[in-house]
Amino acid sequence: MQKQLIIIGGVAAGTKAAAKARRESPDLKITLYTESRYISYSACGMPYYIENLIKDEKRLIVRTPEYFKEREDIDIHIKHKVTRILPEENKVEVENLETGEKFIDEYSKLLIATGSRAFVPDIEGVKLQNVFVLKDIDDAVEIKKNIKQSKKVVIVGGGYIGLELLESFKAHDTDLTMIDRSQQILNTFDLDISSHIQNYLIEEKNINIITNESMKRLIGDSKSFIKQVETSRGKIINADMVILALGVRPNIELAKEAGIEIGETGAIKVNERMQTNFPDVFAAGDCVETINIVTDKSVWIPLGSTANKMGRIAAINITGGYEEFKGITGSMVVKIFDYTASKTGLSEKEAKELGYDYVIAILMHRDKSGYMPDAKEITIKMIAEKSSGRILGAQVIGKGDADKRVNVVAAALTANMTVKEFMGIDLTYAPPYSPSIDPILIAAQMLYSKLKKEVGSITPEELQKHLKQREKAAIIDIRTPSEFKAWHIENSQNVLFEDLEEKIGQANRETILCCEGGMESYLLTLQLMEKGYQNIRFVDGGMNFYKNL
Amino acid sequence: MQKQLIIIGGVAAGTKAAAKARRESPDLKITLYTESRYISYSACGMPYYIENLIKDEKRLIVRTPEYFKEREDIDIHIKHKVTRILPEENKVEVENLETGEKFIDEYSKLLIATGSRAFVPDIEGVKLQNVFVLKDIDDAVEIKKNIKQSKKVVIVGGGYIGLELLESFKAHDTDLTMIDRSQQILNTFDLDISSHIQNYLIEEKNINIITNESMKRLIGDSKSFIKQVETSRGKIINADMVILALGVRPNIELAKEAGIEIGETGAIKVNERMQTNFPDVFAAGDCVETINIVTDKSVWIPLGSTANKMGRIAAINITGGYEEFKGITGSMVVKIFDYTASKTGLSEKEAKELGYDYVIAILMHRDKSGYMPDAKEITIKMIAEKSSGRILGAQVIGKGDADKRVNVVAAALTANMTVKEFMGIDLTYAPPYSPSIDPILIAAQMLYSKLKKEVGSITPEELQKHLKQREKAAIIDIRTPSEFKAWHIENSQNVLFEDLEEKIGQANRETILCCEGGMESYLLTLQLMEKGYQNIRFVDGGMNFYKNL
Repeated sequence: MQKQLIIIGGVAAGTKAAAKARRESPDLKITLYTESRYISYSACGMPYYIENLIKDEKRLIVRTPEYFKEREDIDIHIKHKVTRILPEENKVEVENLETGEKFIDEYSKLLIATGSRAFVPDIEGVKLQNVFVLKDIDDAVEIKKNIKQSKKVVIVGGGYIGLELLESFKAHDTDLTMIDRSQQILNTFDLDISSHIQNYLIEEKNINIITNESMKRLIGDSKSFIKQVETSRGKIINADMVILALGVRPNIELAKEAGIEIGETGAIKVNERMQTNFPDVFAAGDCVETINIVTDKSVWIPLGSTANKMGRIAAINITGGYEEFKGITGSMVVKIFDYTASKTGLSEKEAKELGYDYVIAILMHRDKSGYMPDAKEITIKMIAEKSSGRILGAQVIGKGDADKRVNVVAAALTANMTVKEFMGIDLTYAPPYSPSIDPILIAAQMLYSKLKKEVGSITPEELQKHLKQREKAAIIDIRTPSEFKAWHIENSQNVLFEDLEEKIGQANRETILCCEGGMESYLLTLQLMEKGYQNIRFVDGGMNFYKNL
Repeated sequence: MQKQLIIIGGVAAGTKAAAKARRESPDLKITLYTESRYISYSACGMPYYIENLIKDEKRLIVRTPEYFKEREDIDIHIKHKVTRILPEENKVEVENLETGEKFIDEYSKLLIATGSRAFVPDIEGVKLQNVFVLKDIDDAVEIKKNIKQSKKVVIVGGGYIGLELLESFKAHDTDLTMIDRSQQILNTFDLDISSHIQNYLIEEKNINIITNESMKRLIGDSKSFIKQVETSRGKIINADMVILALGVRPNIELAKEAGIEIGETGAIKVNERMQTNFPDVFAAGDCVETINIVTDKSVWIPLGSTANKMGRIAAINITGGYEEFKGITGSMVVKIFDYTASKTGLSEKEAKELGYDYVIAILMHRDKSGYMPDAKEITIKMIAEKSSGRILGAQVIGKGDADKRVNVVAAALTANMTVKEFMGIDLTYAPPYSPSIDPILIAAQMLYSKLKKEVGSITPEELQKHLKQREKAAIIDIRTPSEFKAWHIENSQNVLFEDLEEKIGQANRETILCCEGGMESYLLTLQLMEKGYQNIRFVDGGMNFYKNL
């Protein structure tokens, strides 16, 4: 019998694996089953389709079933649901969703690429009209169709998709509310970072953001259309559309039922070759867990870029080759209007939860040479392990060029670099692209000083707590008098450089220095400590950072 | 006697070292001598000052002598020329250029940061009015002052500064000619890459570019103003301003005279701590050579970013600390109107000259997801060593986001990564920032296939040569009929996918496949070779790349 690869699922990992398997093995029979009527589409592009930056949903479709048949000799069966996997017999049971017909198909290798589904909580009203999730193209088309009649939209969940959708809806001039049950939007970032974006959304984009509250129930009108959202604390928000952006869950039920091992994260467990506990059964994409190479722990972070790579590697192994997927570093980027938020490796709270002994550096800096008229602010938070000095992660956000700098950190994480090694990376420089020392290198230098214990600092969050205590340090603000006048910490004093040492000498207690973005006070602290002043720290990220908390 | 650090030179390395030395050592006496009347300015910002993006030249000055005195207790003597170094006696001889007074000063440590100067050839007419170099702020001020009266400007030299100045002058609506004696502008890049930029400048920016010719002499009018440039082949070009952008030379004469060792590149030789052959004499910045960590060979690549880092490390070692400058990877970026050109590591021609056995990959690809309306083309050329599989370098150019992708490669070079390791880097993805697999990772995948000998290719330059031979391969163009009609290689045939195998079967000779940007034909070649077709290659970079040669 001809060897057959059966693939379940037709989005990123499934179609990537199909195409790669075909290139590796011209004679293999390749059959793909998917419940959906679309395959090979960019789910990540849907917010921009809703925004109408992309007019036609067909632009999101990378390849059609016809293309796969004609060009790759791959049989794609849309609207076909695999209802059972029989791994002992190398068989699957399939249902044609249009005819209801059921049949058995036999594989030599199976790839499970069932992806993930939007999480919908089991509460009153989730089935009302104009309550949507955004998971596939049909959802996107429905949302876009109804958007013109919608004046008030509530987005439940402040993750990547929810945040991207703010821009999509604002383009249609809707009134927007975002609800997040946690204390912050963009929950994978540290609170002191995400709070900047939260303030930006409230102040500059006029978004109503409600944190620390969940959605209690959805209230409909007489025609079963959504009318109001009630929150856990009893707030009532009017809405004529609700988007449930509460994250996704891996589609593992089929695998689990067949005895395929599920990992500790709740997604399918695979080895480095993307192989499950059944040697002929592979799995890839949003339905599998992987390793975070920073922590060496299992993680489930479903992303299109990862799914693509996993699909490629699964196909190589399925067709007799050998290639390993070593894991991820949790790199991501999200565009929130003209704000960019990117991350790789661990956040501070993740490092803390995992018990790392770490140091952090926070820096606000221009993304280009300061004299370039289009230079904009970016904020960097970088984390390193105290004992080893190796980098653990970075978050970069801002209106400036904040999207690719974390990729250098991602490379460093892959190479297990220390902060010192990182400082030696020869980054490009020209005034339209970066300052002469890239902010990410300055952040690394600050980390390095902290690792060497040359300077001490206080994080804005620690400072907030400190200010509530009875015994307070002397807080010395070294910004210009006009900056100080515009906004400053209560009881802080504005001290000119020439009076600084005298003031510190008089203080007779700990001194906390603060500047604009964290760099100047860091350098001053370094200098003062060399001079013998001991009881002195600077505020990480400076006042521009602090006031956004 | 109080210990004194004397620094010669006040731009990037000198002032950086002064500030860092002060932070490390509060009691050290620090004195800086410079011939210039400016210190601590951004030379790299001067093109944008001339363009008038920056109105006032003072914006380019980072720190003034007064600042250094008041804030850092550093004595800066402008218009003071160090005329002699006496390293055996730890003394320097200084001349006050305003009074003519000469005096001796004594150092415990000396830092030579004399930088570089613009090269001016010894030919007729270089002293004419309105013939400029661009090396310091006085030059920039003079050029900007005279620009309004200048209608025709000739830039001699197609390096970074010359190319940046095109934009500066075009903003003043001048008619521009660029002359380069070599076969290409942007000579540190490969010709097949720089030719794209050359075509862009000619076709879209209306720049007159003359390569393979040098400047023979400059011809003045009766008032000794520049009137014409005569080239080596006798072309006469009218000009009312000429910029000599012929590169720079290290200022080493002072050091050399004092017996300080000069390296094989002609710049000052230092160890990893920035120390010369005299233990108390350090050197940093444009006047020293360093190591290219890719080749482990000495190189002299003067750049502001490198000077800054060297200054910092010199200061740490001067003040009793220990830190090493490990070298560079030759990373650079230049903005040429709306075109970006960036590079790190080796170009193909450098790899060839150094005798490496290498493979290359060329890819033209959108910088973002193809469906995003603002997606733009970038071109990547990446090079790896055949035997070890390690990455040797990358060049990225284009109107799209081409400035930061090489930084990931720079990190990989620092970590000595192989192509395979590089492919595992978890880069960020969202449609507004990149395709789901970043083009730099696709280029790495292509390199990997070539390293594994899964595919063969022909570079556009090899194809040009091939087309001149009598025995030609069958050239099969798989683009759409309309693309083919618009432009194609002579004697190539446009073949639809369904007829491809038949055509290859009939060919009875080598087949060369070509597509738009190099990716599709690469994938097809991979597939066809798996099917057993052997005598088949694809064109690196595709037809979009080829037609720009």
